[in-house]
Amino acid sequence: MLLKYYSKENLMLLEKKLSTEYESFKKMGFKLDISRGKPGSDQLAVSNGLLDAISSADWEQQHLLDYRNYGLLMGIKECRQMFADLLDVNPDNVIVCGNSSLNMMFDYITQCMLSGAGDGPWFGRKIKFLCPVPGYDRHFSICQYYGIEMINIPMGKEGPDVDMIEEYIQDESVKGMFCVPKYSNPTGVTFSEDTVKRIAALKPAAKDFRIIWDNAYIIHDFSDRGDNLYNIFDALKLYGNEDMVIEFTSTSKISFPGAGVAALAASTKNIEMIRSRMTIQTIGYDKLNQYRHVKFYRNANGLKKHMILHRAILAPKFKAVTDKLEEKLGSYGIASWSKPNGGYFINFNVMPGTAKEVGRLCREAGVVLTDVGATFPYGIDPNDSNIRIAPSYPPVDELMNATRLLCLCTLLAAVRKLLNEK
Amino acid sequence: MLLKYYSKENLMLLEKKLSTEYESFKKMGFKLDISRGKPGSDQLAVSNGLLDAISSADWEQQHLLDYRNYGLLMGIKECRQMFADLLDVNPDNVIVCGNSSLNMMFDYITQCMLSGAGDGPWFGRKIKFLCPVPGYDRHFSICQYYGIEMINIPMGKEGPDVDMIEEYIQDESVKGMFCVPKYSNPTGVTFSEDTVKRIAALKPAAKDFRIIWDNAYIIHDFSDRGDNLYNIFDALKLYGNEDMVIEFTSTSKISFPGAGVAALAASTKNIEMIRSRMTIQTIGYDKLNQYRHVKFYRNANGLKKHMILHRAILAPKFKAVTDKLEEKLGSYGIASWSKPNGGYFINFNVMPGTAKEVGRLCREAGVVLTDVGATFPYGIDPNDSNIRIAPSYPPVDELMNATRLLCLCTLLAAVRKLLNEK
Repeated sequence: MLLKYYSKENLMLLEKKLSTEYESFKKMGFKLDISRGKPGSDQLAVSNGLLDAISSADWEQQHLLDYRNYGLLMGIKECRQMFADLLDVNPDNVIVCGNSSLNMMFDYITQCMLSGAGDGPWFGRKIKFLCPVPGYDRHFSICQYYGIEMINIPMGKEGPDVDMIEEYIQDESVKGMFCVPKYSNPTGVTFSEDTVKRIAALKPAAKDFRIIWDNAYIIHDFSDRGDNLYNIFDALKLYGNEDMVIEFTSTSKISFPGAGVAALAASTKNIEMIRSRMTIQTIGYDKLNQYRHVKFYRNANGLKKHMILHRAILAPKFKAVTDKLEEKLGSYGIASWSKPNGGYFINFNVMPGTAKEVGRLCREAGVVLTDVGATFPYGIDPNDSNIRIAPSYPPVDELMNATRLLCLCTLLAAVRKLLNEK
Repeated sequence: MLLKYYSKENLMLLEKKLSTEYESFKKMGFKLDISRGKPGSDQLAVSNGLLDAISSADWEQQHLLDYRNYGLLMGIKECRQMFADLLDVNPDNVIVCGNSSLNMMFDYITQCMLSGAGDGPWFGRKIKFLCPVPGYDRHFSICQYYGIEMINIPMGKEGPDVDMIEEYIQDESVKGMFCVPKYSNPTGVTFSEDTVKRIAALKPAAKDFRIIWDNAYIIHDFSDRGDNLYNIFDALKLYGNEDMVIEFTSTSKISFPGAGVAALAASTKNIEMIRSRMTIQTIGYDKLNQYRHVKFYRNANGLKKHMILHRAILAPKFKAVTDKLEEKLGSYGIASWSKPNGGYFINFNVMPGTAKEVGRLCREAGVVLTDVGATFPYGIDPNDSNIRIAPSYPPVDELMNATRLLCLCTLLAAVRKLLNEK
C-alpha cells in the first residue's frame, strides 16, 4: 500500500518495527561505502595486463621517436588516433594528456579565468555557469573554487531543459555549462539527438561561451544496446559553432582510475589556444603510459571490446540494487530510482525533505553515501530529495547490505516525516 | 696571441682562412643540435629496467592500498619518503605529483595569480619577479605568459647578487624569484652557503614573496666531489621564513625525461594551500609510476647511486667540449666558458655583441644552439654575449663536430667585428 494512505496508527506501528530493525543493523557494525564512482578490484583485475604491455624490450632498439624522452606535447600519434576514433573526430583536433580529465577541465577553466576564451580573462568579472542538476560534484567544485556563479538547469529524460538554457544564455555573463552527456552523473540520462542538436545550435550572448562536454562514460554500456549519443562536433558543424564545446574523456574507468590516459577534442582554434598554454605549462605528458595503453587496447575498437568485461561485472551489481529497491520500496510510493543503461550511478530520489535525514541514518549505521546535496551546486538540493548510489566499488554482499540499510532508512525517514505532519 | 693584438692585415688573413673553413663545414650538411638539456639515448638505457620494475604480478594479490585506483592525492607514502630523504625534509612537507616539475611550478604560479599566496590574488596587479641571469628560459616564459615583469639579477660565482636582491625586495610589487640553486641553468654555479643563508634571511616588503627553488640538478654531479648545496629549509628555519620558498625537483634527468616523477617540498602552510587547490584540480597523480620508481631505485640512496651511471656518460662529454674550446679558442682571449661540476650545461660567453651572429652562423651551417638570448628574460641578452651549450643529447662524434663549428663561428664573428671596428 502507498505510504500516504497509511493511518497514523499504522505509521506508528511501522515506525516501531523499522526502528527496531535499524537498531539491530547498527549493532552489526557495518563499514560500507557506496559514495564514489570507483571501480572495484574485480574491474581493475581485467586491465591488470596493462602493466605488462610495455617492458624494457620495447626500447632496446633505437627508435625514431623515443617516448621515454622529452617531446610530443600533444601526445603520441597512435594514442591521439585511438581517442580520435573513440570520439569520432580528426586526430588533429585531439590532445592526449596525463591521467586525469578532471585536471584537464580544471586547467581549461583556469586558462579561461586568466587568459580568457577569446573575449578577455574571466577573472574579476561576474561569470555564471549553467549546471544541469542533479550533476557531478567535482564540476560544481571547480566553479565554486573560482567564484563562478552556478545556475541549476533541471535534467529531464532527454537531457537538460534546453528551453531554460536558451533563455539564460541571453545573459552575457553566462559563460559556460558543464555537461555529462552520456549516462549523466548521477541521473544516467543520455542526451537525446534533439537535445544535442539544440545545444549545438545555441547562440549565446557571450562570444566566449564554452561548454565542457565531459564524455566520461562514452563506452560504459551495460548491454549491447547501450544508449547512442549524437556526435556533438557533427552537430556543431551544422551551425558553425565548433568553438563552443570542449569534449573530454579518459580511460579512468576503462583501464585504471589512477593511472589511465585522458584526452580532449576541440576545434582547431581552441586546440591552438590550449596548445599555446601547454607550451608554457609543461614539458609534455607521460608518453610511455599513452604507449602502454595503445599496446594493450590497440585501438578504439579494442577499448570497446574491453568494456564487455566491465559490463559483466557492473550490470549485475546495478540490477541487484534496483531489484532490491523495487522489492523493499516499490509498494510504498515514496521513492523513485533510475535504471540506467550504463555509467556509474543509480539516481535515487527519496521523499522530499528527507534525503539529509536518510544520509544521517545511513552514516550512523555505518554506510557512507555520497554527501547528500553534493549532486547540486553549493551542496544545496532544493527538494532535499536526491541521493546518488554508486554500486561499483563494494563486493556484492556488502553492496546488498548497504542497499538494505538504505531502503530501511528511506522508509523510516518517510514514516517519521509523515507522522510529524499528522 | 690574443685577438685584440692582431693587426688589421692579420685579421683579414684570418678572416679569409676562417671563411673558407666555414664554407667547407657548410657543405658537409650537418644537422646537429646542442640546444636542449635532453638526456641522450645512452642515458635512457641505464634506466630502461624501470619499465620492468612493476608488472601485473604486483597486483595479483589484494592490497590494502591499491595504487591503480583513485586516492592518495599527495602521492604514495614510499615515494614521498624517497623525495623527503633526497631533499632532506619531512615527508609531511612533500607532495609527489606527475611527470613534470615545470608543470608543478606553472600550477603554483597560476595559483598565486588566481588565489594568491596569502595576500590576495596577483592577477590584475603589477607583479615583478627577480630572475638571476643568465637563467632558465622556461622560468622566464611562465613569467612572461602571466605578464609578470622580470628584473635581471646577475649571477656571480656564489650565486645571484644578493645585495641587489635585498634592494629590490623593498619594492612591494616584487613578489618572487626563480632560482636553480645547484648547477644553475646555464651557469653551472651552485649557490654558496652564505648565499643560501642570505636568501633565507630576506625580509621582503611583500608578505607573499615566494621563491621557486628549482632544484632540478640536485644529485647530478660529475664526480664524487660534487658541489654541496646548503639545505634551504634548514636556513629558512633560522629566520622563521619557511613560507618563503617552494622547492621543486624531479627524476626527469634521473629516470626518463618524459615519464619521471616530480615532487615539491614546502612549509606546512604552503603545503596546505597547494593541497586545497589540488583537491579541486585532480583525482590524484599516477601512483603506479611513483611506485615503479620506488621499486626500481628503492630510496634516495638508490637514486644517488644511479647517478654514477649518468656521470660516467656525461662527464666525458663535458670534458671533451671544454677541452675543445680550450684548444680552439684558448689563445685568443675572446671567449670564456664554465667547467661545471655537474648539471646539464656549459655556459659560454663570446665577444660581446657577437652572440646572435654566432648563433646565425652555426644555424646556417646546420648546428642548432639554444636560441641566443633565451637565457635572459624577454630573450634580451644586454651584452649579446651568452650562449648555452647542452652537450648531453648528441653522440660524442656529433658533439665534437658541433663544438668545432661553434669555435669556428665564435672566432669568425669576433674577427669580423674587430675588422668592422678598425
